[in-house]
Amino acid sequence: MTTIDLNADLGESFGPWKMGDDEAMLEIVSSANIACGFHASDPAEMTRVVRLAKAAGVGIGAHPGFQDLQGFGRRRIFGMSNSEIEALVIYQIGALQAIAASEGATLQHVKAHGALNNMACGSPKIAHACINAARRCAPDLINLVLPNTALENAATEIGVSMAREVFADRAYNDDGSLVARGTEGAMIHDPDAAAANVLAMIEQQAITSINGVKIPVAIDTVCVHGDAPTAVAMARHLRRKLEDAGVTITKLSA
Amino acid sequence: MTTIDLNADLGESFGPWKMGDDEAMLEIVSSANIACGFHASDPAEMTRVVRLAKAAGVGIGAHPGFQDLQGFGRRRIFGMSNSEIEALVIYQIGALQAIAASEGATLQHVKAHGALNNMACGSPKIAHACINAARRCAPDLINLVLPNTALENAATEIGVSMAREVFADRAYNDDGSLVARGTEGAMIHDPDAAAANVLAMIEQQAITSINGVKIPVAIDTVCVHGDAPTAVAMARHLRRKLEDAGVTITKLSA
Amino acid sequence: MTTIDLNADLGESFGPWKMGDDEAMLEIVSSANIACGFHASDPAEMTRVVRLAKAAGVGIGAHPGFQDLQGFGRRRIFGMSNSEIEALVIYQIGALQAIAASEGATLQHVKAHGALNNMACGSPKIAHACINAARRCAPDLINLVLPNTALENAATEIGVSMAREVFADRAYNDDGSLVARGTEGAMIHDPDAAAANVLAMIEQQAITSINGVKIPVAIDTVCVHGDAPTAVAMARHLRRKLEDAGVTITKLSA
Amino acid sequence: MTTIDLNADLGESFGPWKMGDDEAMLEIVSSANIACGFHASDPAEMTRVVRLAKAAGVGIGAHPGFQDLQGFGRRRIFGMSNSEIEALVIYQIGALQAIAASEGATLQHVKAHGALNNMACGSPKIAHACINAARRCAPDLINLVLPNTALENAATEIGVSMAREVFADRAYNDDGSLVARGTEGAMIHDPDAAAANVLAMIEQQAITSINGVKIPVAIDTVCVHGDAPTAVAMARHLRRKLEDAGVTITKLSA
Repeated sequence: MTTIDLNADLGESFGPWKMGDDEAMLEIVSSANIACGFHASDPAEMTRVVRLAKAAGVGIGAHPGFQDLQGFGRRRIFGMSNSEIEALVIYQIGALQAIAASEGATLQHVKAHGALNNMACGSPKIAHACINAARRCAPDLINLVLPNTALENAATEIGVSMAREVFADRAYNDDGSLVARGTEGAMIHDPDAAAANVLAMIEQQAITSINGVKIPVAIDTVCVHGDAPTAVAMARHLRRKLEDAGVTITKLSA
Repeated sequence: MTTIDLNADLGESFGPWKMGDDEAMLEIVSSANIACGFHASDPAEMTRVVRLAKAAGVGIGAHPGFQDLQGFGRRRIFGMSNSEIEALVIYQIGALQAIAASEGATLQHVKAHGALNNMACGSPKIAHACINAARRCAPDLINLVLPNTALENAATEIGVSMAREVFADRAYNDDGSLVARGTEGAMIHDPDAAAANVLAMIEQQAITSINGVKIPVAIDTVCVHGDAPTAVAMARHLRRKLEDAGVTITKLSA
Repeated sequence: MTTIDLNADLGESFGPWKMGDDEAMLEIVSSANIACGFHASDPAEMTRVVRLAKAAGVGIGAHPGFQDLQGFGRRRIFGMSNSEIEALVIYQIGALQAIAASEGATLQHVKAHGALNNMACGSPKIAHACINAARRCAPDLINLVLPNTALENAATEIGVSMAREVFADRAYNDDGSLVARGTEGAMIHDPDAAAANVLAMIEQQAITSINGVKIPVAIDTVCVHGDAPTAVAMARHLRRKLEDAGVTITKLSA
Repeated sequence: MTTIDLNADLGESFGPWKMGDDEAMLEIVSSANIACGFHASDPAEMTRVVRLAKAAGVGIGAHPGFQDLQGFGRRRIFGMSNSEIEALVIYQIGALQAIAASEGATLQHVKAHGALNNMACGSPKIAHACINAARRCAPDLINLVLPNTALENAATEIGVSMAREVFADRAYNDDGSLVARGTEGAMIHDPDAAAANVLAMIEQQAITSINGVKIPVAIDTVCVHGDAPTAVAMARHLRRKLEDAGVTITKLSA
């Protein structure tokens, strides 16, 4: 039996501002990356989404990012030392751990958000800071990593549990990196094409690049987006197609 | 043998701004209330002070406050629901727990900061929110409470471990409340007077009010201030006087 | 010819989070209270809305609030001195003034937001701080005030230009204060009832309380809400009803 | 008669945290770059320093930076559009303008802070955003620029008033750029050497590089640092040496 995890970024509302449809997405995904208050969310919102995720039986993950609400954690910030980045990640993991504990839940995984994730994929130093952060405060967490990046390398070198993720709606270059947003063909907008793409990656345990090159990777989880109505529909379609093909959607710790 | 805990608010620097002399105070106190990033401090600063406190053998406590750096958590904020306050406290406890875990340390206690503490002392609802927050995410923590307040009542009603604290340098009203700052005689500025005051409270297990009324309380810890050079000298003087009188300074968990 | 101003709070998005439909509301109202970055908005968002308001010929007003994004400026914050409140208001007015200047526009008015407005209505000290702030940095601005409040009194005593506002969708007590939200009958949900209510207030230059008591006031502007789809429809309905009754909607400076 | 302006970054305290000795520095410098609340300071602190600067007859300048209190505006932030950077600068200039107006003062100049200044020196796009920001909201302000940078070029191309600044305590490369901090010889620590260096630059209207290469520049202002006790002494020594050599210290607008 083939199984796969579906993960999405959830809990991205903040104070009076709403984003996404967490309830709808929690019926689709098996793992939730929950914002920890630095790039989105706040303590009350984190509590709300942890409660929903627990009730839905969805794996709960910390989604630490740069402290940048206005930029939603998508702006690269240079000039933080490795120990500052480690402390930033540990702080956010701990905050969500305590909220989970208060709800009788535990964390399953951790995934860096936005610019922090991007920088960790390209910089061995930042990658080690992120992986070490989780190892030092929560050694049982599964680290979500993009294959063929400094982040995957750091997880391997440090020897932590990891899950490799692919994107349902993004095209890849021949070296396994993502085709940059804004480039022709970078995004897969057609739900059927995205589902076929994911099914092929799972069956072949390989990414097929935009040029047709096959890059073998162990695929543990598929990232779907949930911050728009169309995204919810696309994620729902993907889940149905996977299930129709006999793939079981199940969280990482299962 | 008489023992007592000395506690102080530490780790109150933020980014480029320094406050207090944490190293000096950690040679004097046995318990440190460490700011958690909402009213002061940041993840790197919390890490620094946890490391220092662990090395000094000082009990590490979370010191959660309102999210108000500019006002240093001293402004009363109305309009948060009980569950919002609970989440706020849980978030901050968790952040410090993870930082402590990353340094191989564990938390000993929790003490609300500034306006949050003041409001919890006066409001049963806020007091229950604070005590429940700690109980739900970290049930082993000792709750520091002011005697004769809604906070002490909440700790009693909920049935958590608590330590009652008195102030070395503050005068008390006949009902056991603190004489408001700014009132004549509210502050004890003379180090010898402060030390004598504390010794008397410990020996008698009672507070003597500004009018001479004795109010029995179980005294577990004495709060000293550390955010000024004179405060460090006063705290050091107090410790020496206590030791000269045969009182052993020891952290709460000992 | 009867004329009246319609005002609404606009520009309340922040970073990646959207709120309200500014474009739709700018076709309805004649004055816009634009958030200044403390309780909502950011410099880029302020620029966007100033540009839209200028293009629509709508009067541009500063809408300063407490520095509290998470609480949307609706939490009362105690412990700021009068001079701190003055500086807070001046800072925000200046920020919007410069953005308006950069777009070739000028400010028409200022209206305190949320908890700051509520506190200014009840506290002569805070009312004077708000009115003095505007007088000191932008003496030509019109101050929006609720009639029969400390804020109106302060504007009268200090001798600044003011405009008195009533609410389209709120009921009033016999003393002219607003019936508290949550009380039976506090909100007027029916668009026709709200429009009839406003027309009566304008024609009679008086508020009619929930008990039928008439309180004479000079009515210069009517506040409508725009942060929900139904609110837009209600505001549009009100404008049409006013125009059908021969009332001209026109901004304050006209 | 030779005249020169001395400028320093002032008003860098924030909430309860103090930095530098503004009163001492205001007796030494002729122009003050006042933090605007994004990387340091707050509305009350800005008011305090504007009042002091006005009383001292010192030229008042806006010192806008990235919104990054924890990093003190020294972290480079990538991913803001040009219009976002423009709005960020305009917002901060306006805030200080209004505070100055409320104190009966006007702004003399604007100088970008920290990472924003560094990025503007290297990026024509960011340089144009900074210069255009000032031109659009406050066209009379003098723009402080480092010679031989994209920022100077932008000021020239856009045609705004500018003042070229040199550093008293920094060494220069042969291309006129600053020797990077941390490099051997990058900082001039000896007060006499710093004073001699500045005098030579003023007399020759040229920078002499660390290798002895002379780079002609029109020198309008000298930047001194004021965030440390030794810095105050060094600045005071420099002023005395300049006056002893017959140089008059005078603000830019004089």
